[in-house]
Amino acid sequence: MISVGLIGYGYWGPKLARNFVDSRGCRLAAICDLNPERLAAAASRYPSIPALDDADAILLDPKIDAVVIATPVSSHFELARRALRAGKHVLVEKPLTSTAADAERLIEEAARMDRVLMVDHTFAYTGAVGKIRELVRGGDLGEINYYDSTRVNLGLFQHDVSVVWDLAVHDLSIMDHILGDAPTAVSATGIRHVPGAPENVAYLTLFFDRSMIAHINVNWLAPVKVRRTLIGGSRKMVVYDDLEPSEKVKVYDKGITVANETENLYKTLVGYRTGDMWAPQFDMTEALTTEIAHFLRCIEGRERPLTDGQAGLRVVRILEAASQSLVERGRPVELDLEVVS
Amino acid sequence: MISVGLIGYGYWGPKLARNFVDSRGCRLAAICDLNPERLAAAASRYPSIPALDDADAILLDPKIDAVVIATPVSSHFELARRALRAGKHVLVEKPLTSTAADAERLIEEAARMDRVLMVDHTFAYTGAVGKIRELVRGGDLGEINYYDSTRVNLGLFQHDVSVVWDLAVHDLSIMDHILGDAPTAVSATGIRHVPGAPENVAYLTLFFDRSMIAHINVNWLAPVKVRRTLIGGSRKMVVYDDLEPSEKVKVYDKGITVANETENLYKTLVGYRTGDMWAPQFDMTEALTTEIAHFLRCIEGRERPLTDGQAGLRVVRILEAASQSLVERGRPVELDLEVVS
Amino acid sequence: MISVGLIGYGYWGPKLARNFVDSRGCRLAAICDLNPERLAAAASRYPSIPALDDADAILLDPKIDAVVIATPVSSHFELARRALRAGKHVLVEKPLTSTAADAERLIEEAARMDRVLMVDHTFAYTGAVGKIRELVRGGDLGEINYYDSTRVNLGLFQHDVSVVWDLAVHDLSIMDHILGDAPTAVSATGIRHVPGAPENVAYLTLFFDRSMIAHINVNWLAPVKVRRTLIGGSRKMVVYDDLEPSEKVKVYDKGITVANETENLYKTLVGYRTGDMWAPQFDMTEALTTEIAHFLRCIEGRERPLTDGQAGLRVVRILEAASQSLVERGRPVELDLEVVS
Amino acid sequence: MISVGLIGYGYWGPKLARNFVDSRGCRLAAICDLNPERLAAAASRYPSIPALDDADAILLDPKIDAVVIATPVSSHFELARRALRAGKHVLVEKPLTSTAADAERLIEEAARMDRVLMVDHTFAYTGAVGKIRELVRGGDLGEINYYDSTRVNLGLFQHDVSVVWDLAVHDLSIMDHILGDAPTAVSATGIRHVPGAPENVAYLTLFFDRSMIAHINVNWLAPVKVRRTLIGGSRKMVVYDDLEPSEKVKVYDKGITVANETENLYKTLVGYRTGDMWAPQFDMTEALTTEIAHFLRCIEGRERPLTDGQAGLRVVRILEAASQSLVERGRPVELDLEVVS
Repeated sequence: MISVGLIGYGYWGPKLARNFVDSRGCRLAAICDLNPERLAAAASRYPSIPALDDADAILLDPKIDAVVIATPVSSHFELARRALRAGKHVLVEKPLTSTAADAERLIEEAARMDRVLMVDHTFAYTGAVGKIRELVRGGDLGEINYYDSTRVNLGLFQHDVSVVWDLAVHDLSIMDHILGDAPTAVSATGIRHVPGAPENVAYLTLFFDRSMIAHINVNWLAPVKVRRTLIGGSRKMVVYDDLEPSEKVKVYDKGITVANETENLYKTLVGYRTGDMWAPQFDMTEALTTEIAHFLRCIEGRERPLTDGQAGLRVVRILEAASQSLVERGRPVELDLEVVS
Repeated sequence: MISVGLIGYGYWGPKLARNFVDSRGCRLAAICDLNPERLAAAASRYPSIPALDDADAILLDPKIDAVVIATPVSSHFELARRALRAGKHVLVEKPLTSTAADAERLIEEAARMDRVLMVDHTFAYTGAVGKIRELVRGGDLGEINYYDSTRVNLGLFQHDVSVVWDLAVHDLSIMDHILGDAPTAVSATGIRHVPGAPENVAYLTLFFDRSMIAHINVNWLAPVKVRRTLIGGSRKMVVYDDLEPSEKVKVYDKGITVANETENLYKTLVGYRTGDMWAPQFDMTEALTTEIAHFLRCIEGRERPLTDGQAGLRVVRILEAASQSLVERGRPVELDLEVVS
Repeated sequence: MISVGLIGYGYWGPKLARNFVDSRGCRLAAICDLNPERLAAAASRYPSIPALDDADAILLDPKIDAVVIATPVSSHFELARRALRAGKHVLVEKPLTSTAADAERLIEEAARMDRVLMVDHTFAYTGAVGKIRELVRGGDLGEINYYDSTRVNLGLFQHDVSVVWDLAVHDLSIMDHILGDAPTAVSATGIRHVPGAPENVAYLTLFFDRSMIAHINVNWLAPVKVRRTLIGGSRKMVVYDDLEPSEKVKVYDKGITVANETENLYKTLVGYRTGDMWAPQFDMTEALTTEIAHFLRCIEGRERPLTDGQAGLRVVRILEAASQSLVERGRPVELDLEVVS
Repeated sequence: MISVGLIGYGYWGPKLARNFVDSRGCRLAAICDLNPERLAAAASRYPSIPALDDADAILLDPKIDAVVIATPVSSHFELARRALRAGKHVLVEKPLTSTAADAERLIEEAARMDRVLMVDHTFAYTGAVGKIRELVRGGDLGEINYYDSTRVNLGLFQHDVSVVWDLAVHDLSIMDHILGDAPTAVSATGIRHVPGAPENVAYLTLFFDRSMIAHINVNWLAPVKVRRTLIGGSRKMVVYDDLEPSEKVKVYDKGITVANETENLYKTLVGYRTGDMWAPQFDMTEALTTEIAHFLRCIEGRERPLTDGQAGLRVVRILEAASQSLVERGRPVELDLEVVS
């Protein structure tokens, strides 16, 4: 029975708490938050679980095996490092840290202490993304030509991080999970509409070595909620709409055929191919349930998580580069990421 | 009765022909195309209208008052210049020319000859765009925060121009029409998936002097057709979906409120405001019908068209700058456009 | 502080429990269910609330003021009668009883004991239905021409009642709430696809004295979930789609105009009128929250609930008549309902 | 080369004319309409085809082989009978006649004269309905449990026939085509909202010998256009939405499983099965093109058309019975139809 302490009970913390309480093989031993109101909410919802206002009470508790961190991004590094040093396994909400340097230090610390470091890239544990990964990795889509995501809605404006670090991080972690490949450069543009606040609209283009491009459109100021990704492959194409109650993933047997004209070798003929559409059934288990089971299995078997520190680091590196490009109105910023998957 | 000659009977020409034939106040006097098959199609469809394989037969015909040019972009300049020099009024399919320098020369020529030069920015003549322009110019939306358009589908791949010149041109001309303001720089990224062919996926960000950003997503390789634009205003927001059979324009009474905390002057509080949605009724006349009536009125009254040479030039300048940025993977390219509207 | 006992912890009971626990002005004093598994679930979820397997422990508890009944329909009458006789206020899940005679007896008992008898016609307490009632009663729609509802999905098959008593009851209670008028006859058709089970597909037509018709399409064997109602008025029309995340209620300024030809008095000319569409914002509070607050207010002030015993009786009478017509393949069955509203 | 005469150039006539003109193997020899305006429109559109105001000029013209009748329903019988007697092959717009007795007489006349009698049940010639027929007849859906169609929109109000004869006729002819089975009784309800005009809202339930039911909802007074049919099979289910630009036919691998409990033989356990969804690609040729080619082939080979006089008669018999039931507010009316297919 793995004993888990949760630090942070804001927006995401209550969902983590509910799922840890409902998971087998672990028990939620303590909840910590600095905000008295949130702490009271935790105490009221889970009367039998200690609600603490001091993270040390969790970090230093020898009976706690694993720490889950769901605090603002800026505090991830310090809390995670202390937890690892105290010999805890650690699950950190996305993004892993606010700098790549910090992410590297956490990876080293986890290796040194032989503890599991996992980042909560939640979408990697959904049935939909798992099915898409299967289609991409299995070659059903052919060569991937592009990945194009729109993730917009009204709010929730963050004070400390831009819409890139808040929303684009989801697409970056999904891409990291399904593609097995990393971008070599990024161009980002965006704007802030609240003086003094970070960017609330942003557009990212990711360049790859191969003939592929990725684009992410994120916006906190949209009148409608959209969660839609197009993935174009040379054989098939996918539309992934996370707001569809069923049929979130649609696979289109569509594409182009390319031929050279015989009379004009320099002119290419493009033909169009359209066939059936297919919406595969997949596991509808809540992502956090799957993710927590995976975290516990990794702890027990000392396995490398699917979304390990390296995955967290890759995403943070792209976020850093995007932030730099954003300031320079789209000037491309090079990336040098290592992918092992 | 204005006598009109049509040059070019490919994809767009037949639609122009049908609308000129059905319009009052003009007659379609001749159709020209270099391709024998297309010419035969024109002759079969309009047995009483001469079908010619020589543009000069139209350009030099003294009985023809106006020339409509619906040929590949690269030939627009030469044909339009010769038509203007021959004293004809000219309507040119979008984009006006393939270079800004050529567009300037056409504008000069039209001024010198005192003839109407109009560019076929078709969407400017739709009821939907007219209604949005009314809402924007009338202040209903408040300050415009962003314009974000997605215009994707499978095909039609062009040989001579990229998806930017083929699809993004629509959004640029719509923006030119509704905003009364021009971008100061552009960052563009994209990719080609057919060797030797122009880019078939592209993303444009347009920067403005004021607190506004625009973004255009165009793609010839998408499994689904999307024609959707979000326009965020400080008071209201618009979703314009051109594929909706009715309710193409939806106005959302949504937005944010910004306040400063009293206890912390450096921290801004963002609130959310959501109200009714409203889909205004508007004129459903086919855009070409309205546009041709406007062209004829401008000829008769020697008025400046809504989509005159200057509008065509502004759009071509942005297309040129975008093409340059695209090669440089998003590096921003400055623009210096004059807007009189 | 009103003390409430809940009998029945199956599908609907847990939702009632959660809402009573979260409501102010009352406390959930006990939960009863005959099924040991469900009882254990209640005990685990609410460790501090007694979980009982004997309804009498609630019905005879003098400290309990009000009883909520969420058991199978066949047991509603007996439990509600005993609760009323014991001096409790009673809220009964829909439909109120399985026969009109039983509903009448409950109404008498409640009157005799001077206790509140309320039926859980949940939709009457949603913001959407409240807004539609407001539009209908305020005359915005003009004369109501028809009410046409489709309520279909896959499952949940009931063993004891047909799809009419399970799904159509929602539409009947919504109509009862918004129209202020009752049907004078009903024609119903349907079919059962599981031998020995009740009908799982049914169609009801309701006739009214005035120039109005209502139709309800219910189906437990549909591949897609649909919750859509069209309400046609002489001035405006409503589409109410309960599955829309936002914009559940759309008001269309559409209709026909009727004129008599001057040259032919016997021939009527029908014209069409189309205008704006409007999706009003409304209260998004969970229906049960509103409903429970209303129940508590009625208890405190001895007020007649919006969905009182009479409303429950009217709906049961239509259900009885529909069941009879269904057996006779649509032969119309007369109704004689009294409406006071 | 089959010579064709068209009688009736109102709503449907122009579509027929265009398709006959574009079809190989035939020529449109003459168009007739009693209305001078329509006749002028025909003459203007087809200057080389005689436009006549006297049907006899077509019916008695020995050079004309086939007559197409697109006039109001009440005139179908007389015109078709005279055409057959004059030795012409005949294609009649739906519904075939206004009484079953008339339809029988036409069938006899066609047999006597050995001429082709075909009814224009257009949907039978669409790729979508052809694909559904293939799925149903091939057993992919298993036993058909229900057919449930909604066909509503604003207008076009007819003066001479009710919404049943105008819209429900489409569903009856589609069912006739795909099922290979005929209903044994019908219950219909409806209402008229324009005094003196026929019913503009109607609901039909069709009963079958086997465990199947069909329902049709038609309405000329709906704020939105709907063309949606659910077909429930024991193995799979279909949603056919004719307004979808692509993916008109969706096949759901969903259903129920029925088992008897071991401990309680009287209680049936219903389980649910959900799998993939699949939208098959099919022929997108315009239905009239396919239909006309079929008509010409039947004439040349003296074959029985897919939608022959018998199909037309079966549909008219159901329409007659429905009209009778409608007057009696849903009382079921028995049918005795013979199906050979």
